[in-house]
Amino acid sequence: MKLIRFGKVGQEKPGVITSEGKKIDCSAFGLDWTAEFLGDEGNLKKLEAWLEANAASCPEIGSDVRLGSPVPFPSKIICVGLNYSLHAKESGMAVPEQPVLFMKATSALSGPFDPIVIPKNSQATDWEVELAVVIGKKASYVSEEDAMDHVFGYVVHNDVSERDFQLRHGGQWVKGKSADSFAPLGPNLVTKDEIPDPHKLRLWLKVNGEMLQDSNTSDLVFNIPQLVSHISQYMSLLPGDVISTGTPAGVGMGLKPPRYMKAGDVVELGIDGLGVSSQVAEDYKG
Amino acid sequence: MKLIRFGKVGQEKPGVITSEGKKIDCSAFGLDWTAEFLGDEGNLKKLEAWLEANAASCPEIGSDVRLGSPVPFPSKIICVGLNYSLHAKESGMAVPEQPVLFMKATSALSGPFDPIVIPKNSQATDWEVELAVVIGKKASYVSEEDAMDHVFGYVVHNDVSERDFQLRHGGQWVKGKSADSFAPLGPNLVTKDEIPDPHKLRLWLKVNGEMLQDSNTSDLVFNIPQLVSHISQYMSLLPGDVISTGTPAGVGMGLKPPRYMKAGDVVELGIDGLGVSSQVAEDYKG
Repeated sequence: MKLIRFGKVGQEKPGVITSEGKKIDCSAFGLDWTAEFLGDEGNLKKLEAWLEANAASCPEIGSDVRLGSPVPFPSKIICVGLNYSLHAKESGMAVPEQPVLFMKATSALSGPFDPIVIPKNSQATDWEVELAVVIGKKASYVSEEDAMDHVFGYVVHNDVSERDFQLRHGGQWVKGKSADSFAPLGPNLVTKDEIPDPHKLRLWLKVNGEMLQDSNTSDLVFNIPQLVSHISQYMSLLPGDVISTGTPAGVGMGLKPPRYMKAGDVVELGIDGLGVSSQVAEDYKG
Repeated sequence: MKLIRFGKVGQEKPGVITSEGKKIDCSAFGLDWTAEFLGDEGNLKKLEAWLEANAASCPEIGSDVRLGSPVPFPSKIICVGLNYSLHAKESGMAVPEQPVLFMKATSALSGPFDPIVIPKNSQATDWEVELAVVIGKKASYVSEEDAMDHVFGYVVHNDVSERDFQLRHGGQWVKGKSADSFAPLGPNLVTKDEIPDPHKLRLWLKVNGEMLQDSNTSDLVFNIPQLVSHISQYMSLLPGDVISTGTPAGVGMGLKPPRYMKAGDVVELGIDGLGVSSQVAEDYKG
């Protein structure tokens, strides 16, 4: 199943992408893709049954309609740093012995085709294509063996990052990760049954048509069961929570010379089986 | 106004503490103290008017009834590190030139008298009394001059911290700040009109009756307008968001030798005008 949300900011409604690739409005099903929906496995079965009976009569969503984040209100977005060895190297940091975790404010969430707003006083707004995992069942102290039972699905995430704010403003990394629009998520939340091996997916990112990141989730230092298990030793993961598993080499900070977003730049990113998103950078207009 | 929430975990209802110190059930008012309530200044006036007419007939809340966090679902808990100079010194760190920010998972929230659960494999669960600020009106790029317009009120917070997880597990600080029960908040959310000067409040914390932290918010390195303005340059602060302003000297990590919580320890903490909370430490029972 491929879940989407569509409509104006703050007024999004739930939909799905059918196996024929049609985007349909599922408001009539009665549930949005919130924690309540994601946290109960029975809901997905109910939705499947409902679609069998009703998909044909669901309104189609026009190609001009905005898509929002397919996950509406995660309690947290937890990101993993330096989880591809070549990216650790380009960042001038060692490959970590344990996952490096940091948070991104959920107020940064935006739709997969929304603009990226370059913050005031930013000199170094950067891109990061990442495979994000969305939690289904609450996870607390879960083993690696059981971890996948707690995963609902996967989604493309651009972990937009302001490098000066992140590294040179005297805070922890959260300072450079949390500006509004810094978490374009989507286009769709793909249920885990559709992705037989999430550790064998090409992920890539282009800026103005130029391929800058091109890697595979087979290169993750810590894989998904390891991450879910590890994080769950430190905090409870709740339904709808987003784990962004880290970015491969090719970010702007790692280029020689470094290169960052400027207004008008088009960022396009995708992951096998999860779709493609794209964002245009624009300056903050207060 | 002093707002409380009471009842079983996950089923809390809204209440207030009257000027005579009575705890009364305000469910009949029709709104919980969520972002929706906190974000609209008119709601507080409506509540005042409603209480004038109805307080006498509101059920009194028994002293045996559990209190929950008076703020139910913040989108984020953002904490300020090293914001009292003596605490920076006892932590072996410099007083920062800009506020150090980190996040605490909102899944850590608990009631002011709930137990603190010492996580599995913890050797260093520590206490931190802090003045927490609750946001009313959304704040994005606000000036120090305007910052207080965005504050709803204040609440006592114990920023419970596992020092090994925070400092020695290869992550950012969030790893040691986010276990379930690591954010006892309350007893009450006090509206800003009741606290004429939030920078002149004694704050203290005892463990098993022994005074270990005893300071005053006049010693904050960065004051509340500076923090709200600073944070709002990096992310949007939403109604209900919690800013925990940092802890003074006297944490377990700073004692010689260091001293951490063990099951049965009683932590009691308070801030002038905001009340007193207390938590008993217990081991994790899986």
